[in-house]
Amino acid sequence: MEHTSPVAAHLRAVYEHHLPNRSGVVADYIPELAKVEPDLFGIAIALVDGHVYEVGDSRHEFTIQSVSKAFTFGLALEDHGRSELLRRVGVEPTGDPFNSIVLDEDGNRPPNPMVNAGAIAVTGLVMGANATDRWARILGNLSAFAGRPLSVDDAVARSEELTGHRNRAIAHLMRGFDMIRPEVDEVLDLYFRQCAVNVNAVDLALMGATLAAGGRQPRTGAEVIGSEETASVLSVMSSCGMYDWSGEWIYRVGLPAKSGVGGGIVAVLPGHAAIGVFSPRLDAKGNSVRGLLACEQLSRELGMHLFVGNRTSATALRSAYGRDAVSSSYHRLADEEQALRVHGSEIHIVELQGALAFGSIELLSRLVVSLLSDTNELLLDFGRVPEIEAEAEALLLELIDECVSAGVAVGLVAVPASALFELRAFSRAKHDGTVRFHDDLDAALEPAEDRLLRRHGLDGEVDGVDLAAASVCVSLDADDLDVLRAVTRERSFGRGETLARPGDPTTSAWIVLGGIITIAAPDGPANGPGRRLRSVGPGSIVGEMALISGAPRSAWITAETPVRVRELDPQGLDEFTTLRPAGAAMLYRNLCGVVGGWLRDSSPIPSRRSHPNG
Amino acid sequence: MEHTSPVAAHLRAVYEHHLPNRSGVVADYIPELAKVEPDLFGIAIALVDGHVYEVGDSRHEFTIQSVSKAFTFGLALEDHGRSELLRRVGVEPTGDPFNSIVLDEDGNRPPNPMVNAGAIAVTGLVMGANATDRWARILGNLSAFAGRPLSVDDAVARSEELTGHRNRAIAHLMRGFDMIRPEVDEVLDLYFRQCAVNVNAVDLALMGATLAAGGRQPRTGAEVIGSEETASVLSVMSSCGMYDWSGEWIYRVGLPAKSGVGGGIVAVLPGHAAIGVFSPRLDAKGNSVRGLLACEQLSRELGMHLFVGNRTSATALRSAYGRDAVSSSYHRLADEEQALRVHGSEIHIVELQGALAFGSIELLSRLVVSLLSDTNELLLDFGRVPEIEAEAEALLLELIDECVSAGVAVGLVAVPASALFELRAFSRAKHDGTVRFHDDLDAALEPAEDRLLRRHGLDGEVDGVDLAAASVCVSLDADDLDVLRAVTRERSFGRGETLARPGDPTTSAWIVLGGIITIAAPDGPANGPGRRLRSVGPGSIVGEMALISGAPRSAWITAETPVRVRELDPQGLDEFTTLRPAGAAMLYRNLCGVVGGWLRDSSPIPSRRSHPNG
Repeated sequence: MEHTSPVAAHLRAVYEHHLPNRSGVVADYIPELAKVEPDLFGIAIALVDGHVYEVGDSRHEFTIQSVSKAFTFGLALEDHGRSELLRRVGVEPTGDPFNSIVLDEDGNRPPNPMVNAGAIAVTGLVMGANATDRWARILGNLSAFAGRPLSVDDAVARSEELTGHRNRAIAHLMRGFDMIRPEVDEVLDLYFRQCAVNVNAVDLALMGATLAAGGRQPRTGAEVIGSEETASVLSVMSSCGMYDWSGEWIYRVGLPAKSGVGGGIVAVLPGHAAIGVFSPRLDAKGNSVRGLLACEQLSRELGMHLFVGNRTSATALRSAYGRDAVSSSYHRLADEEQALRVHGSEIHIVELQGALAFGSIELLSRLVVSLLSDTNELLLDFGRVPEIEAEAEALLLELIDECVSAGVAVGLVAVPASALFELRAFSRAKHDGTVRFHDDLDAALEPAEDRLLRRHGLDGEVDGVDLAAASVCVSLDADDLDVLRAVTRERSFGRGETLARPGDPTTSAWIVLGGIITIAAPDGPANGPGRRLRSVGPGSIVGEMALISGAPRSAWITAETPVRVRELDPQGLDEFTTLRPAGAAMLYRNLCGVVGGWLRDSSPIPSRRSHPNG
Repeated sequence: MEHTSPVAAHLRAVYEHHLPNRSGVVADYIPELAKVEPDLFGIAIALVDGHVYEVGDSRHEFTIQSVSKAFTFGLALEDHGRSELLRRVGVEPTGDPFNSIVLDEDGNRPPNPMVNAGAIAVTGLVMGANATDRWARILGNLSAFAGRPLSVDDAVARSEELTGHRNRAIAHLMRGFDMIRPEVDEVLDLYFRQCAVNVNAVDLALMGATLAAGGRQPRTGAEVIGSEETASVLSVMSSCGMYDWSGEWIYRVGLPAKSGVGGGIVAVLPGHAAIGVFSPRLDAKGNSVRGLLACEQLSRELGMHLFVGNRTSATALRSAYGRDAVSSSYHRLADEEQALRVHGSEIHIVELQGALAFGSIELLSRLVVSLLSDTNELLLDFGRVPEIEAEAEALLLELIDECVSAGVAVGLVAVPASALFELRAFSRAKHDGTVRFHDDLDAALEPAEDRLLRRHGLDGEVDGVDLAAASVCVSLDADDLDVLRAVTRERSFGRGETLARPGDPTTSAWIVLGGIITIAAPDGPANGPGRRLRSVGPGSIVGEMALISGAPRSAWITAETPVRVRELDPQGLDEFTTLRPAGAAMLYRNLCGVVGGWLRDSSPIPSRRSHPNG
């Protein structure tokens, strides 16, 4: 059975609803255009990840006509920049028809790039060594947006060439004001050919989706146009894209769009998707009748509207808490743990989520500023942030400046790859040593805790203990301890030495008498130790669960410092149990308490730390 | 030390940068307006949560003038609906100045509600029993947007009344076409008073933030305007809000906005925030000079632009996995656990995050449709979804329809409160019994697992076991078991009976011989059991960690079915240890294995299940 996405179902329903509509007439101002089969109808929706929904004649080719204006405008923006282009072409909707010949009074500029006068001027501004080169760039640009090589309908191009009298008039008028280059015929030739490029509805949808994705073609991955230029193109599409129906369009449909007399419309929902429609019958304003209606219905039913839908940043702050609510997995002595609890609010952790834009960084700023006077260490966890928008990143850098100038050390955890380079460069240049980068929160917490302990006079030196002081030896009597000493042997390991590797057959457990041992996940780089699971110090026992179950090691066990242990192997444990059964009962009972404590602490969020066995 | 948010710092920098600018002249077409101190300058940014940043003369009152047009347009939209209003007033930008007297050719309509003609028509459309009532509604509406009672500057109102000749001409022209109500003087009186309402920059920012928040005033919480009407107001502001500079404004600033000749501008970033500016010197088009420049700079520097910034839905799918990757905490027998592992992909879980709009539901649809043919149960976890947008909710309902028609049972987990009523009503009406609602994923998984087990012929009946078969009794010899029987006593509990409450002093542990016992978190409704932590069946032991540590109970322990247990109290345990030390050592050792197993399973994500003690 074929299952249908509701989006596909909507698309088909919209298609079928408008299919019988025969209103409007096909463009006939040039003979070639009038030859099109008038009842063709195709719609496509392309998502920013390149997925396409399509229905009807979505692969039927037609000439792009004025839809090209938006994309060639983008190319000219890349060539000249926004300010220079604005000197040559306005961006004001006119309320006049697309073929208006009016230029503005101040600068003799055409009113905007979406009417013919403006589009001809824009095409004339595309750079290139010569006409051939300029044409290659124009066609190449349209093809890059579509993600496939496009070609020209020569018959239509010739037909435009022969009959485009009004466009010739417009061009010569602008030539009179020195607003386009001297070679009027060449500019017009480029313009006519640009309008005669063949596309289908899927092409239009993907061209629009490239704008929706900030300039990145969803299928080829090519950066077709910069994000600033993308914003400019979308702005002009939103104000001028639908000729003198643009206001009503943005009111009814709410999407930046561009239509062409070939019957095509592209409409863009920034960040999400774009619609491409093809239906040749046009209304009096030159817009595709069924195209308008289909876009309006899709916008209304699917919430594809600039001003509809929640784009709020209120959920950007996932959680914020002090060190009193969370610990690094590094082993701390009792007095250290006590100091960390009492002074825990000197370290603050903020977890962020979602793509970060203005609103989210504003929320973060407000929170962080309120914390600064009580905090010495701020850890920002970006582990759930896929992307940081450029302006938001600039704000973030300023927030970090503010923290540093308030004497707060900043740790950035799991910064998204796309922002890492810039943040690192900034940190090196301005705050070397004060802003630190970490892969995970645990790795960030440990040094922050170390600094907290040093501020409070705890130097982190670890004294050794006697076997009797080990947690598993509580309530053992002197005879028990003697036997336990006899069945274990003392060993030492150097800093960094490996006690066990994942997959090793289990031989022993280790009661730590001196130093720190780290247990790390198996998935590290180059098959080495990965994320630290915990570290333990004198008095702890390591590796005993595998000893009991007989299962192979599941993690790395490594000496963090020089380490002194008593090693207990299976025979030793059996011997101890045989010789001192009551002592063994006590040892196992102690072990239950140790493991139970770990179980209770295994949730990083204190509120979740209910004991799962009541 | 006072710490500054970077947003506040930007605001101040923008203010100081433009403060020396003395370009432009104050409006002088009515004498009262010309009296304003021309160098005043205030800016405010209001966030959708009501937080306000402000600088300069942000509390100085001035008359709202044309900024009122946007908000009274909203009121008329609420009164008449979008289609009816469109018959009376167009929404097309004209390129003509604000006081243009041109009506359109088709319908004799004023071109849009943001020029004087359209605004007068709109004010005339506000409903009310009489002029007093209509005025109360207009002033009340502006006050509701601002979140405080506003008042009129009578001198300005009188001044407009005496000198508004052109507006009188416009009104009478429309009266001639029957486009406004007969009482032209009354309509003009309302219009002049509306324009003379006093506001400050903070008011404007909060009025805009109400639109940014979809119609909800951020401080009072009042629903001032519907979300559809909000979208319409923002649309018209984006296309026509800045007079014949609207195209350039959206190109440069990219925010729906409205300006007034009193020197005010409001600019809205939907979903996030709004800017309110006051600076009385105007440019030739009637827009505040410093207001424009300040908005442009804020938009550029902070990324407050409609078409800038990532609003993508690519992060909406948090994770998706089958039942093979996760288990409910309900006790399953070995053959059941085996069946659940083998057939686990019949149950699929999708976790969503962030506010859901078109793009996110589209992604979800695509994933779910691809799963339908292999899945019997679909669980959608909304635990991290704060809100579902209306159109997205409609799509979601259709997706559920598709699932149900494909024979897939749907469980909706932790649906946000705002969507719960509608989803429940839909489910009752169409899919009662097939769509289920659950508070958390665990509660949803259990019945889905039950149905899976029934499909595979496992009826879930639990046989009783002998004490010898309990997990803690492995390797105990017959004498050990006899003593253990002697020091424990058999007890029975009825379905739903409570064995222990959080905070109870610990007395016993229970070895389960028959039935199912549930352990639940303490934070339930009406102080009853909350989220289930796990359930256990015959052969398990419950409550032993508290027995060992002597700590009070931390959770609810309840009989899920009729239950038969052996109860072990501290004296019994001590007695057993004394009489059978080797047996006790074995019992504790077994217990270590049990607790170790729980520790290993305590992460719901399989990849995180490394054993924290190596």
